[in-house]
Amino acid sequence: MASVDIETIETPSLEDPVLLEGLPGVANVGALAAGHLIDAYDATLVRRIYSEHFPPQVMIEGRSATLTGTELHAIDLEGRDVLVLTGDHQPQTPIGHYRVTEAFLDVAESFGVSEIIAMGGVPTGELIDEYDVLGAATEDAFADRLEEAGVIFREDEPAGGIIGISGLLLGLGARRDLPAACLMGETSGYLVDPMSATRLLEVLQTLYDFSVDTGSLDERAEEMEEVLNKIQEFEAEAHVDVPGDEDLRYIG
Amino acid sequence: MASVDIETIETPSLEDPVLLEGLPGVANVGALAAGHLIDAYDATLVRRIYSEHFPPQVMIEGRSATLTGTELHAIDLEGRDVLVLTGDHQPQTPIGHYRVTEAFLDVAESFGVSEIIAMGGVPTGELIDEYDVLGAATEDAFADRLEEAGVIFREDEPAGGIIGISGLLLGLGARRDLPAACLMGETSGYLVDPMSATRLLEVLQTLYDFSVDTGSLDERAEEMEEVLNKIQEFEAEAHVDVPGDEDLRYIG
Amino acid sequence: MASVDIETIETPSLEDPVLLEGLPGVANVGALAAGHLIDAYDATLVRRIYSEHFPPQVMIEGRSATLTGTELHAIDLEGRDVLVLTGDHQPQTPIGHYRVTEAFLDVAESFGVSEIIAMGGVPTGELIDEYDVLGAATEDAFADRLEEAGVIFREDEPAGGIIGISGLLLGLGARRDLPAACLMGETSGYLVDPMSATRLLEVLQTLYDFSVDTGSLDERAEEMEEVLNKIQEFEAEAHVDVPGDEDLRYIG
Amino acid sequence: MASVDIETIETPSLEDPVLLEGLPGVANVGALAAGHLIDAYDATLVRRIYSEHFPPQVMIEGRSATLTGTELHAIDLEGRDVLVLTGDHQPQTPIGHYRVTEAFLDVAESFGVSEIIAMGGVPTGELIDEYDVLGAATEDAFADRLEEAGVIFREDEPAGGIIGISGLLLGLGARRDLPAACLMGETSGYLVDPMSATRLLEVLQTLYDFSVDTGSLDERAEEMEEVLNKIQEFEAEAHVDVPGDEDLRYIG
Repeated sequence: MASVDIETIETPSLEDPVLLEGLPGVANVGALAAGHLIDAYDATLVRRIYSEHFPPQVMIEGRSATLTGTELHAIDLEGRDVLVLTGDHQPQTPIGHYRVTEAFLDVAESFGVSEIIAMGGVPTGELIDEYDVLGAATEDAFADRLEEAGVIFREDEPAGGIIGISGLLLGLGARRDLPAACLMGETSGYLVDPMSATRLLEVLQTLYDFSVDTGSLDERAEEMEEVLNKIQEFEAEAHVDVPGDEDLRYIG
Repeated sequence: MASVDIETIETPSLEDPVLLEGLPGVANVGALAAGHLIDAYDATLVRRIYSEHFPPQVMIEGRSATLTGTELHAIDLEGRDVLVLTGDHQPQTPIGHYRVTEAFLDVAESFGVSEIIAMGGVPTGELIDEYDVLGAATEDAFADRLEEAGVIFREDEPAGGIIGISGLLLGLGARRDLPAACLMGETSGYLVDPMSATRLLEVLQTLYDFSVDTGSLDERAEEMEEVLNKIQEFEAEAHVDVPGDEDLRYIG
Repeated sequence: MASVDIETIETPSLEDPVLLEGLPGVANVGALAAGHLIDAYDATLVRRIYSEHFPPQVMIEGRSATLTGTELHAIDLEGRDVLVLTGDHQPQTPIGHYRVTEAFLDVAESFGVSEIIAMGGVPTGELIDEYDVLGAATEDAFADRLEEAGVIFREDEPAGGIIGISGLLLGLGARRDLPAACLMGETSGYLVDPMSATRLLEVLQTLYDFSVDTGSLDERAEEMEEVLNKIQEFEAEAHVDVPGDEDLRYIG
Repeated sequence: MASVDIETIETPSLEDPVLLEGLPGVANVGALAAGHLIDAYDATLVRRIYSEHFPPQVMIEGRSATLTGTELHAIDLEGRDVLVLTGDHQPQTPIGHYRVTEAFLDVAESFGVSEIIAMGGVPTGELIDEYDVLGAATEDAFADRLEEAGVIFREDEPAGGIIGISGLLLGLGARRDLPAACLMGETSGYLVDPMSATRLLEVLQTLYDFSVDTGSLDERAEEMEEVLNKIQEFEAEAHVDVPGDEDLRYIG
């Protein structure tokens, strides 16, 4: 197997497609949003991308074992062609992140991708009522369009920058003159957060003018809320403090 | 030395051989099963495989030091040719796992291997009376044959997938259209577990229609049980809890 | 992207330039000194240097995301051409340090650099009143010039040598017959230390005969001193010991 | 710089030289023995070997900084040509150990080396009165000669094998048909152990029929013993237990 190994399933002709990335990350916000679109639309699997930079692992579905990797699906988002990138894992090393992202961009360019949206979550470290979707972009015009669609840009935030595949799709995308942006759904960060994913999809619907039912995400959000309530009740009884900023770990 | 260095000892002509892997892992189940077959049959060492992805280490036997690596033995399992892969260590990095597994598959293909069985253990985290052998496969027909031989397939299990050389023999084997399966002997995971290896060999005997005396493994199993009993007595006296799920560490 | 990717912005003709490195490190002394010179003089950005050996990360400025990396600015230090190397991060692995430093030296040689000064901090582990600037050099004649400019050479110090890009600019620079020295501003190491950077710039001014206003660094030094005083007051009240040598961690 | 970079200083003609390795390790036994021979005989520096697999570091001697690496000196051991390999560090990764050791063996072969002795320490985990020198070898005839010279071979020991450059000089040396052995001076492992190095040199003197004054090592051994006595007195007063087997860490 090559360092990155691209399996071609189908090569539909797409017009000006957007690359939409939703790999695992903070509260799984990006992965939930990407998975929801693949389920909601008639998705065509076009590429599987394997790499020695992913963990040495197979995933089990039913009785069947398949090599861990990422998948690229084509969907027609009510007139706008979109390639959705999803998968099981982030690469295992810094160099792996660079090499795999370059391969993703090669594939994207082979489909004529004209812009990139990386999706993820940004932890607030406390329970929040109002979910904002924060943004960062590589070009001013792209940032303007996102602000019009309801994305919030906070000067110099996130302070630590954006790491992982999402970050490099912007950084290396820009090096290829591909406009790229990152949409980050705010989330407490305690648990998988379908509510944050719903908010992110609302912004996307405005941006690309489509309408998708997020009922199933809302149901999962209610379930997660019940889990959270029980944890809080238990903590209140036990006189245990709710975790503060420093205790925050991603629980997915 | 090349990144992976294959030393040819002998190249017997084999008919449709099975590749049977038993490298060190959970409770050493796979390694015990593989070693037992090599001891029980008239095994021919055919290849030694070294790699910079293994630890920088020599092993000492008697007065003699030899470079750590893996060995491939050919055995005739009462009519069925089998190549048994054993060794001292797993590779040290994710990339190393991929590179070494590809080399194993190259060698396997050079012998005309027609199917692959990776053997290992799966920890239950508690002492168990009934040892099941769990399975996962890359092809449905292979899974059917294994179920007939007594292998248990549990929907989507193990949940974390299969990692290491065993996992990649399935994942990368499938990428080469080589049918592959993993047999995982259930084990508490506390200690080296010869009983789990015996159960795994029972399944193999049904699958490939051979009969091997596992008396020596049963003896070692009794010894391990005594060790375990003493640990439990000691813990009972000391009012120490038996380790729970979270305390489980592989002790080999 | 290549393993190290050099983006050419401008290629001014420079005479015998000095390469002055100030990447992040102990108390950020080198980075503060380098940044101060870039701000104080009319700096020209000449190269951006990216690498897969840096973290997989974009930095956010305003609304804009840019790939993490290093920048090389040209400044005219009152008659002496200088190339100032600054950036966000050190490489992530030992090999990465070697590869990135070689690339820096390639660029430096392409501009005809005749000597190299690596700037950093050396932690004393206690609050200090008198800030010395320690030195190490690859050639005796260079060490002599530095001593005349007020740099202190302490026999065989620092005992642990110099690590990171600063260390390799000396070690690999010498392998190319490029005279190189490291200037290390003494610092408690508790906090970002603008006072140590000021002292380092005083030595540089003597060495290269220029005069720069360090007022803004002095102001930041006063702010840091207030922060430190408050920490000490708090510790005194709480009867907590001031951290000893072993507790010292770089806080930047 | 290449992955491993060999600087040629001199290339004297040597007859059947032995390669004697003494890099840093357990209680620094090998390094002490190697350094003592370089000091005692008229050593000629023949090669410096640098590598990106060593730490990114310069060492400071006096005012001068030099890239970390290893040195190969030629000495005439009263009729027997010997190449002594010493240095500051072990490589930083498993792969680095393999690559650097292959380079050492390339250099050794270019000088016509006919056998290899790797020197190190083996920790006993308790204070010892009688220092044995343990051995392991790649060829029986070599093991016989070592036993005649007083080296002790303990069946299958050390149980964990031999790791690092010493281990690979044996393992990879044997792959090139170069007879190789490891001499391991027993040591408590608490501190740098010149007494263990003296014992190792006694064996070497018998093996290669030379005589070297080890007075300076004996003096350092006495100093270390005083240090150890003071530590023990202090621990006795403080009613602190002497560290048991599990607490043993190399202190060098």
